[in-house]
Parts: sequence; structure tokens; C-alpha cells
Amino acid sequence: MDLLDLFKNSKIGDNVKVEGWIRNHRRQKEFGFIDFYDGTTFETLQIVYDKEISNFDDIQKMLVGCAIEVSGTLVESQGNQEYELKAEEVVLIGECDETFPIQPKRHTREFLREVAYLRPRTKLFQAVFKVRSVAAQAIHDYFQKNNYVYVHTPLLTTADCEGSDQMFKITTMDMKNIPLVDGEVDYTKDLFNKATYITGSGQLHGEAFAMAFKKIYTFGPTFRSENSNTKTHANEFWMIEPEIAFCDLNKLMDIEEDMLKSVVGDVLRICENEIEFLNNFVDKTLKEKLEKLVASEFVRITHKEAVDLLLQSGNDWEFTPDYESDIAKEHEKYITEYYNSPVFITNWPKDIKAWYMKVNEDGKTVAAVDLEVPGVGELMGGSQREENYEVLMKRIEELGVNQEAIDWYMNLRKYGGCYHSGFGMGFERLLMYLTGIENIRDSIPFPRTPGNCEY
Amino acid sequence: MDLLDLFKNSKIGDNVKVEGWIRNHRRQKEFGFIDFYDGTTFETLQIVYDKEISNFDDIQKMLVGCAIEVSGTLVESQGNQEYELKAEEVVLIGECDETFPIQPKRHTREFLREVAYLRPRTKLFQAVFKVRSVAAQAIHDYFQKNNYVYVHTPLLTTADCEGSDQMFKITTMDMKNIPLVDGEVDYTKDLFNKATYITGSGQLHGEAFAMAFKKIYTFGPTFRSENSNTKTHANEFWMIEPEIAFCDLNKLMDIEEDMLKSVVGDVLRICENEIEFLNNFVDKTLKEKLEKLVASEFVRITHKEAVDLLLQSGNDWEFTPDYESDIAKEHEKYITEYYNSPVFITNWPKDIKAWYMKVNEDGKTVAAVDLEVPGVGELMGGSQREENYEVLMKRIEELGVNQEAIDWYMNLRKYGGCYHSGFGMGFERLLMYLTGIENIRDSIPFPRTPGNCEY
Repeated sequence: MDLLDLFKNSKIGDNVKVEGWIRNHRRQKEFGFIDFYDGTTFETLQIVYDKEISNFDDIQKMLVGCAIEVSGTLVESQGNQEYELKAEEVVLIGECDETFPIQPKRHTREFLREVAYLRPRTKLFQAVFKVRSVAAQAIHDYFQKNNYVYVHTPLLTTADCEGSDQMFKITTMDMKNIPLVDGEVDYTKDLFNKATYITGSGQLHGEAFAMAFKKIYTFGPTFRSENSNTKTHANEFWMIEPEIAFCDLNKLMDIEEDMLKSVVGDVLRICENEIEFLNNFVDKTLKEKLEKLVASEFVRITHKEAVDLLLQSGNDWEFTPDYESDIAKEHEKYITEYYNSPVFITNWPKDIKAWYMKVNEDGKTVAAVDLEVPGVGELMGGSQREENYEVLMKRIEELGVNQEAIDWYMNLRKYGGCYHSGFGMGFERLLMYLTGIENIRDSIPFPRTPGNCEY
Repeated sequence: MDLLDLFKNSKIGDNVKVEGWIRNHRRQKEFGFIDFYDGTTFETLQIVYDKEISNFDDIQKMLVGCAIEVSGTLVESQGNQEYELKAEEVVLIGECDETFPIQPKRHTREFLREVAYLRPRTKLFQAVFKVRSVAAQAIHDYFQKNNYVYVHTPLLTTADCEGSDQMFKITTMDMKNIPLVDGEVDYTKDLFNKATYITGSGQLHGEAFAMAFKKIYTFGPTFRSENSNTKTHANEFWMIEPEIAFCDLNKLMDIEEDMLKSVVGDVLRICENEIEFLNNFVDKTLKEKLEKLVASEFVRITHKEAVDLLLQSGNDWEFTPDYESDIAKEHEKYITEYYNSPVFITNWPKDIKAWYMKVNEDGKTVAAVDLEVPGVGELMGGSQREENYEVLMKRIEELGVNQEAIDWYMNLRKYGGCYHSGFGMGFERLLMYLTGIENIRDSIPFPRTPGNCEY
């Protein structure tokens, strides 16, 4: 049976059979203790055995990492758990010798990245990847219970809202022998007969579905080909992109806030043990920070108000805040610490934001909103979309966006278009917030970064 | 408010405000009727308005497809619905002229594929894509409530369990100018410093996580580059790949059967109206077929028994059944019709199955299982995995699998490996089963097939 069900449903005196792995093994002459886990719960079960068991000597040879099957009776524990398992039979299912890299000691995260296929067996990564799974489900639960339709937008694409310079090219042609015509690639020889990429966003396709289902969300992998080695960049990551028809910027912020609180609440409730562990060993402020977020009301300020605040601070900034520019990491930090709360910053200068964002009446700013969160920085980025065909066409022409590829997208404005808004949330960024983990490589099962596509 | 909430919670006499689109509009001299939908539910709301409304003439000009906002009072309906909305105000939010391709008449599916960005506004695709969303959630719900961890296996990969000949290559290099050294591609110039692909399966990575969490599943996009134009092939599709430690082939079949019944049950319950529509307009046997599946017990036979049955049938087969070969479409059809039930076929000839499948004691067959379903054919393919290091290494050598790329995978057998099993289910194949839709292109929001990567 699963250890999770055992802890939920079993009581002292029950006969049980469990399968899992040895995390630790303390041997004494007459008896022994095994820290046993199976991964269905963060908790371990202590197994005790003594000389009365028929294969006592064999059991004593079982090392950390071995897969075993144990039958026995639950008895009162001497330790701090409710019960332990008095073994009647311990069967070796899979050997593990002393070369096993995951030993019961502290390993550096760098070392664990090199054995990414084994690191989910450590307590740290049992916690991180369980939180990842529970957070994903919490996101699905939130949107489904609020009448959203989950849409699988395509990954292979010719259109992209972020521009093709940051996208991976894909091909079925022989890379040693790419056919050229007049110095240009002859894509008629490729499977789709045109230049194709793996996507950086499902937003444009999501908008098409929002015009049919009113409320939709995507949740899938996304790619950026940038050659950037930082703690917050990976070439493959997962994104959530909700899109809502008949929704303005204020309502969008309501949704972002409501969704985030719901997800954090679910994780706190379902992953109590994991959060406790992460709070003890990764970030001592984690639990308090998460609990506070659920109870707080997020601050909402404009970009202008944010810059005012930064200028009035009297701080000696590395990057001088100004009304026409993006805000820097140091600014994000100051603002979230100043309010001691997540902060929505709205109405950004038009020239530093994307072409599809709604131009405000001032003609200078767009109805965009970034959510800045203490300790993480930008967690979500959203906007009201430009629904006016002429205004949007003018923006596209100004910015040189490839019109042919997004003809269909423009048509959405002609056929019963409406004011609508959406946001994107990087799932790994959320996980770093939920776990206290500081490097994105430790929030993804098998991270892909420049030069690293192992396993 | 969302129409779904209105139908759930509102009663005659309530004042409501709704936003959505015009599906149909019947005009009379003194009054008019609008079939109104917002996509949050399959049902439409009838809106009635008369001369008393201030902008009567403007409303009469609103065409099919227009986005509108309507305020009014719910009144008793003359038709077959519980109530209709007596409009006090109808505001035009987004125009739609008579060039709108989605008119209230029958369109061919081929035509609708050409306007894939608009087709979710038809009743057919409102049904199909809602079922898609609900089925996806049903799958997540099933696995999460049964203690599985959701794992995001990587899409960019160097290893693959299906072989790289069916995979798309990815690159950041200039396609016009691929650097060569001695006639070979110089991948040191590419982002990952090696040949990289987008994956055809997450199984191998899933196995690594099953050795840590016991029960895991993946649910994500998958790619095949094959140049194949059939009703059942797409180059991009979604797959579910559960992997379970301490699980043999019999237990795997229990899980497959239990999961499928749970998902079909959820869809029947949540998508009652959609299934009713699909049953009326796509496949008259749909509802009965789905209800029967939930109540049935799946048949389990071996490949040998299946071939015996086929040979004994006396049928004049296009492909003669034999004990060493795969079974053909015509055979699948015969078997599922013979039993009038889903059928598990187990213990397949080793030489026609994948290298990672567990070799049975006879040395000739492997512990593989395909689930054949009436009307669809193969819905799931699974196997017990070979957990014996030496046997697996021998298979790899025989079949010329790239050893270097799966070194780490082999190590899973050394470090506390155990008997374990898993299966893959193509999500679109499931959807075709759930909706009666016959072409995979109609089960995916924006399908990708050879020569087709529009939008």
C-alpha cells in the first residue's frame, strides 16, 4: 500500500505491506532501524526488525537506496511518530551498492544537478517536485472551478507574439545539407513548407479561444533560445496564460490576486510537511511569507507613482528611475519592501511594452500590469489587449511586426471582438516563490540551459 | 455574469447582466429574439426585446457574431428552456459584419479547419473543446487523488525512447549557414553544444521519477516528424504517460481500466449537454458506448489467444494473422466487435516491440499490453519495463540503441531499481473516442500536419 494511505488510514495493530526505498539504515547487533520512504508522502516510516526475523543477516547488508518490500505490524513508536512498522518480512527488490551518489548527508545543489535523474530521491527535491505537482493541480483546479476552458495552444508555430529572434528553429531537413535557393533556405523541402519555430507564448492563440469561450487558460511548455546563464533563466520552462473576454485591467488584477491566493492556499494546506521542511532548511521566512500573502490585500500603483516613490526615496540608485523606462531589480526590491506586500504596477510607458497592449487615452502609456512580489520580483505580466483594429494595425506597422503571419489574429478584432485581458505567469518563477529555491535549475526536473541538455 | 452561473443560480424575476455573442437573431417588426451564448456553458440563453427598448433600431442591425452586453430580467420562457432574458439594455461591444464566416448553417469540417481560429465559436467545436478541457482535468483529478506526482519531463532532449529518426531537430544556428567540420555539423556552435530534438516521449525521464515518487504521470505535448497524412496522425499531439514502481503487468491493466472509467464517467457527468449534442449530430452510438464502457469489465487476452481467435474466425483477411506479427486494423476491429468490449492484448512477440519492455520467461514475448477499444482501435500502449541490467543491456546492443545517451537510464537499474510498469495514452485518440469525431485534426485547437502549420 502507499505510505500516504497508510498514514491516513492505518492504526496500531494493523498488518500492512509496503514497497519503497531505504533512506537510512542503523544497524545494531540484535536489531536494526530502517528509515523507509516511498515518495507518495514526505513522511518516512521507521521500520524495526530484530533477530527473530529469518533473514536478519541479509537485511543488515541492505544499503541506502535499496528497493524493499516490507510486511509487518504497526506498533507504538518510541520516537516522535505515531507508530513504526515491526517487520515480519523484509524482501530485497532492487540492490543498491555503496557507489550510490545519494547518501544520507548534505550534498551541494551543484552536485545534485549533475545527477538530476537521482536527485528526486533527496528530501529537498522530494519537497520541491511534490510542491510542483500540487501547485500545477491547484492552478488547474482554480481555473476549472471558475468556468475557464483549458486550451492546448500549439507549440510548433510560425506566428509568435514575442518575435522569432528568441525562438528555436525546427526542421526535418538534413542539417548537413540544408537546401538553398538564391542563398535562402528552401523551406519547400521542410515538413511544413515554411520556416517553423517552437513557441515562446500561446497568447495569440489563446485570444482566439477567449473570443469563443470567454474565459480560457493555457498551461504548457514554452521556449526561449537566449544564451543567458543566470539563476532565473532557462531555455525551457512552463507558462500559464489565462485570457478573459469582457475583462478590463482592474478585473484582470482581481483575477491574478484571487488565483495566486488560491494556489498558495492549496499548497500550504496540502504540502504542510514539505513547506515545513523548506522553511527549516531553505528559507526561514518562507511559511510566514506565504501565509501573509494569502491574508493580504495587494497594493495597486501606476508606473508613474512607482517612479515618484523611487525618486522620493533619496536612495543612491545604480539605475536612475525615470518615467520612460522599465524599472530595475533594485527598484522592484525597494517597492515590494516599502509596501511589504505584493504590488501591481500599472500603466507602463508604451515604448517599452509589447505591440498588442491597449494604448491608454493619454496616448503615451499602455494598460499593462506587472505583479511584483517580495523576494522574487516580477511574477506575472499582463495587459488589456488592444481591441481596436486601426490602433493595433498602426502599432504593428510602427514596430515592424510580421503582418502576414498574424492576419488571422487581426481578424479577431473584426468579428465580434471585445475588450479583453490576459496575463502570463512563469510556473518556475512561482515555484521559486513557493519553495524558497533560488536557482531556476532546481525547480525543473531536467533543466535546459545553454550547454546543458543532458539526460 | 457567466452564463453557466446564471443557469446554476438564477431564478425568474432576477435582474442580470451578461456579456457574450449573438449566435442567431430573428427580427420581427415589433420585437426580436437573440440566441445568446458566452462559451462558459453549452446552453444558449434566449434574449427577447421589444419596441420599448430605447435603441430598438440599432439592436435590429446587430448581426450574427456581434459581441454584446445585455441587462434585463429573467422571465418565464415560451420555449423549452426554463426562462429567457427580457432585455432592458443591449449594448454593442464588438461589431461583426456579414462577411463573418461562421453563419448559422452547416459548414463542412474541411472549411472549418481553414478558419481554425474561428471554429471554436460553432456548436460542434464548443462541444469538442469543452470535452477536451474537462477530460484533461479528469485525468489530472484521477492521478492526483490516487497519490501520483505530476512530472514535467523535458521536451528538448538528446535521448529518446522511440529513436531520433522520427524527431524534429532544433537549432539556434543560422539555417542558411550551418557550420560543418569534416562534413559533419559542428554542434559546438549550437546552444546546447550537441544535436538536440523535441521529444517523442517522456517515458525514460518518467521512470527516473517513478524510482523516487513510486507513482508519477506526465501530461504534455509530444512530437513526431513523420510525413504521414491520415485521419489519425498529427505531428504535434498530447500524451499522458504514467509510470508506476512496484507494479507488474496485471496491476498496470487494473490502473488503465480504472483510469479510463473514471475519465469517461467525469465527462459524461460534467459534459451532459455536449455529449447529447455529439450523440445527435456526430455519432448516434456515442452515449450508449460511453455509458457501457463505464459499466463493463474489460477483456484480457494474450497475443497468442488473439491470433487463435482471428484464425478460427474463418474470415478472409487482407493481412493473414500470425503469431510473430503485429495485428492489423481489421484484426483490432474484429476482436473488439467479437467481445463487444475494450480488450487488453498482452504478451506480444519480442521482435515487434520496443527495447525497454520486459522479456518474459519464454524468451520470445515481452510483457507488453495494448488496449483495443471498439471504434477507435489502440487507445493505450504499455508494458512492464525490463528491470534487469544485463538483460536490458543485451537488448540495447542487439537493437543498436545509442548507449551513451541513456547511460543514466541504465543506472536506474543499479540503484534500487524495481519491477515497474507504465503506459502511454494519446490524448487526441481518447478525445476521438469521447466525441465520436473521426479526424484527429478536429480534436486539436490548431492541428499540425505535413504542410500545415498555419496560424
